[in-house]
Amino acid sequence: MQKFKDVQSEAPESNYRLDRVGLTNVMRPISVERKGKNITLIPSFKVFVDLPPSRKGSDLSRDIEAVEDVVEGEVEGRAKGIEYVAELIVNKLLTRHPYASSAEAELTADYFLERSNPKGRKTVERYVIRGRATQKDGEKSKRYIGATATGITVCPSAMKTVSALMNRGDDSPPYISHNQRNDVSILMEIPDGWDIEVNEIIDIAEKSMSAPTYELLKREEEGMLVLQAHKNPKFVEDAVRDAMKLIVKQYAKMPDDVYVKVTSESFETIHKHNAYAEKSGTLGALRKELG
Amino acid sequence: MQKFKDVQSEAPESNYRLDRVGLTNVMRPISVERKGKNITLIPSFKVFVDLPPSRKGSDLSRDIEAVEDVVEGEVEGRAKGIEYVAELIVNKLLTRHPYASSAEAELTADYFLERSNPKGRKTVERYVIRGRATQKDGEKSKRYIGATATGITVCPSAMKTVSALMNRGDDSPPYISHNQRNDVSILMEIPDGWDIEVNEIIDIAEKSMSAPTYELLKREEEGMLVLQAHKNPKFVEDAVRDAMKLIVKQYAKMPDDVYVKVTSESFETIHKHNAYAEKSGTLGALRKELG
Amino acid sequence: MQKFKDVQSEAPESNYRLDRVGLTNVMRPISVERKGKNITLIPSFKVFVDLPPSRKGSDLSRDIEAVEDVVEGEVEGRAKGIEYVAELIVNKLLTRHPYASSAEAELTADYFLERSNPKGRKTVERYVIRGRATQKDGEKSKRYIGATATGITVCPSAMKTVSALMNRGDDSPPYISHNQRNDVSILMEIPDGWDIEVNEIIDIAEKSMSAPTYELLKREEEGMLVLQAHKNPKFVEDAVRDAMKLIVKQYAKMPDDVYVKVTSESFETIHKHNAYAEKSGTLGALRKELG
Amino acid sequence: MQKFKDVQSEAPESNYRLDRVGLTNVMRPISVERKGKNITLIPSFKVFVDLPPSRKGSDLSRDIEAVEDVVEGEVEGRAKGIEYVAELIVNKLLTRHPYASSAEAELTADYFLERSNPKGRKTVERYVIRGRATQKDGEKSKRYIGATATGITVCPSAMKTVSALMNRGDDSPPYISHNQRNDVSILMEIPDGWDIEVNEIIDIAEKSMSAPTYELLKREEEGMLVLQAHKNPKFVEDAVRDAMKLIVKQYAKMPDDVYVKVTSESFETIHKHNAYAEKSGTLGALRKELG
Repeated sequence: MQKFKDVQSEAPESNYRLDRVGLTNVMRPISVERKGKNITLIPSFKVFVDLPPSRKGSDLSRDIEAVEDVVEGEVEGRAKGIEYVAELIVNKLLTRHPYASSAEAELTADYFLERSNPKGRKTVERYVIRGRATQKDGEKSKRYIGATATGITVCPSAMKTVSALMNRGDDSPPYISHNQRNDVSILMEIPDGWDIEVNEIIDIAEKSMSAPTYELLKREEEGMLVLQAHKNPKFVEDAVRDAMKLIVKQYAKMPDDVYVKVTSESFETIHKHNAYAEKSGTLGALRKELG
Repeated sequence: MQKFKDVQSEAPESNYRLDRVGLTNVMRPISVERKGKNITLIPSFKVFVDLPPSRKGSDLSRDIEAVEDVVEGEVEGRAKGIEYVAELIVNKLLTRHPYASSAEAELTADYFLERSNPKGRKTVERYVIRGRATQKDGEKSKRYIGATATGITVCPSAMKTVSALMNRGDDSPPYISHNQRNDVSILMEIPDGWDIEVNEIIDIAEKSMSAPTYELLKREEEGMLVLQAHKNPKFVEDAVRDAMKLIVKQYAKMPDDVYVKVTSESFETIHKHNAYAEKSGTLGALRKELG
Repeated sequence: MQKFKDVQSEAPESNYRLDRVGLTNVMRPISVERKGKNITLIPSFKVFVDLPPSRKGSDLSRDIEAVEDVVEGEVEGRAKGIEYVAELIVNKLLTRHPYASSAEAELTADYFLERSNPKGRKTVERYVIRGRATQKDGEKSKRYIGATATGITVCPSAMKTVSALMNRGDDSPPYISHNQRNDVSILMEIPDGWDIEVNEIIDIAEKSMSAPTYELLKREEEGMLVLQAHKNPKFVEDAVRDAMKLIVKQYAKMPDDVYVKVTSESFETIHKHNAYAEKSGTLGALRKELG
Repeated sequence: MQKFKDVQSEAPESNYRLDRVGLTNVMRPISVERKGKNITLIPSFKVFVDLPPSRKGSDLSRDIEAVEDVVEGEVEGRAKGIEYVAELIVNKLLTRHPYASSAEAELTADYFLERSNPKGRKTVERYVIRGRATQKDGEKSKRYIGATATGITVCPSAMKTVSALMNRGDDSPPYISHNQRNDVSILMEIPDGWDIEVNEIIDIAEKSMSAPTYELLKREEEGMLVLQAHKNPKFVEDAVRDAMKLIVKQYAKMPDDVYVKVTSESFETIHKHNAYAEKSGTLGALRKELG
């Protein structure tokens, strides 16, 4: 006998279906396996299902149970990546919420890679990765993978203006300009039957800027990096286009309907505001645009 | 003669059109007129135009000029609200960027209203308002208005469970439960030829929760507010549905194709995570759902 | 007759005096008068009093009343600045909390000044200002004024390294280097009987960096600003020392015991972390150090 | 032969000693060992040394090297906790910066513990922990340990007022009141030769509120937790005093000069602002106050 009333299952006063009901700001360490290596991530989770007009509320404790099912029971040392964790969670959400017809999960986590700086010195660099999955009841789930890389962009326009102001008689790089901390973010749908390695996405984001940045740079390495960036000046617009071009090249065999989005935000050093550029579309449309 | 090279107008290496190029994190005080009263807002602005494949860069300084045109030249003491400022900016963006085919502006600002607490004592309450506009070249601009109100929601389910645990013999409100700080946000498209008063949107958001909150509450007023909220328990789901119902009623004469979105996020006191509900759609679809 | 129990005035279980009890995250527009001009600020307030061991709680609604007393009743159009608002609040806090022996108020607000960019074009720039006051019962209140300016710093070390790498045969400025968005913050005690104009503090913070930054820069102006900054390379350490030097010079007649603190934080473009420098002390100690 | 100029070691223009020069916002995963169990933390690091008046700059790359020395070389699988990592870093900072006379390191990280909810169900809960160390050249280093626990506090005053408004004829707990998400933070100096287990500090912070909170609560467990909290109403002032009392009891044998600080911040549900209380002092002074 049920001692406590199940208020959530009662009929609500107004017959609205809700698009998303769930939790935000859930944090929980997880362990994923990348190429045989165990990695601990501490993601922030968002999990949602829809809610039919017949129900007053969603059983929100089941959202946490779905996360725990995956993190504790099935994923421990097994999920190939953050996007697979998201996928397993949406599968579980639909099982645990029998009244739901769609589910969604998104995980965002700091992520670290060993890099070599301009003279080959080892440094550990921080990135942000995103795993996302959606599922409709009775259909296959869809996975998305995303990443943000922080790099440096040098302004191509100011370089030419300063060359003119200094009567340099040449305005080719490298020369004095302003440069900024820049975040390039990529989000990509993963077609059914395919895999996208998050490290590849990070590489593309990082390569689309004037240069990567490094936590550790000794004197000469710093000079080399500054030169490398000034030899390769880029607008936020260039970063977005170059990332898109690399994506089209790297995933040449993927189907036309794969959705991709790229953004670049630069924390301008000569202004207090930020510059921003964005492009999204399907691989098919991108291929057509490049001609 | 042009002394300095216009790098932005050069052809880029890859022929991608960009969806949005512009500025984020621009801050600037503006003055708007509401019902004959001058109000100073300090919004954060986002402004974007698209960029054709023929151009390497957008002239970003023109974005600031478009903002300044509006703030200094034409709006001072005249714009009826934050959404009109957004609209004037998108008009100016298209003039100042002749190569652009679309423009977008969004302003978000703290906003304050005098309220009366449960015993009628005057307090000044904080809200967030949003004005947004989009325009395609050669078409009319579209305005959107939005607001977030912070209130309190009392959990209807825990109230019944605690009643049972205490053998109360009755599980009707008011009784012991947990309650949370809750943010209800509304975003609404404004149909051409119509006006939506932001204060109305705020009222709807605030009324959709268990009770409003007040900065100033003396002892008895605090007790009255706590009781008021506990007599009106609500899930985040209820807040979204109730706001939608109030919107459908308030804007009964507006056209069917007006887009509306409502979200409710509650900063749970018995959990470290937040609960969240969301619904969006057109007024027409909402009217049909309510039957 | 008191109908409702005054729980706050009861004795607590443990006899601890508390150092600070009050409110954070209070937001409220205020109007201050600077040189005959009315300015609207939207500060975030913190207000605290201490609490004797004999009382269980502080009457927190009185904190809001103290703020309202000042904002509505006495300050409207009168207070000379944010630090005077803070001072009036601590006076009121001690009156409204007769059991308190000390009070403290801090206001932080965005603030805007019209500036001229390198070719004299007018732009409106954002700063952050702080007003702070403390008072002990039976003593005079103390005022503090603070500000943060965001500017640009160009690295002096990388400039010389790049000169060497390029075999430039000269390593004097200006030359290629990396540059960053930099926040210089100053906090200063105001001696009794003195005034410190917040705009002066902002000027000093801004002048201590390689160059100011501007929201609006057309092509040539951008080049001129970039050159100006590269002619004046600075570490975060230089920014702090130079701000201190300007403070010592500007306030040469102020008493020795005035407390000053300066910090500089630069959002490195070649790293993902920030560089930081800090110095605090009395004007007397600073004078002695400079010799 | 040195090819690149060491600008940092040059004399600055003004002869100021700087108190702190270093890095903020460094992020890096580390592995610590607690009771034989390996835990991965992803802290945010701050590291500083002072700078003598004879030097223009600090060698900031050495700050990262000091962190890496500790994380890679010596700590891997060995450091007993976040405060020991901080201590090893300050040791290294003084070695790597021979011109420095003091060093400081602070690490802040999310941290997770398995808990049992009111019916014994297992949940994983999030906390924040802090490790801090300082060292003067030629002296022993000092360690500090800190933690923040998020819990729930129920207002004791509104409970009595609502009892009166409802003519309950009794105002003892539990009854209807408002309740809030509350953060209690503790920072403690660790005396030389002693250890403080961070889990103990977390337990004290969590016990000082009306009740802990849990990510997973099924219907009856939620009701039990709500009741538990309402049977134990607390002001922010009570939370601070109760944490202090538990600290004094738990560390009864520690020396008198150990510094402790406790804060409680509650995100009020009936207001838009937060309530805050704070107390700091030495164990000796705290013991005397309690009598």
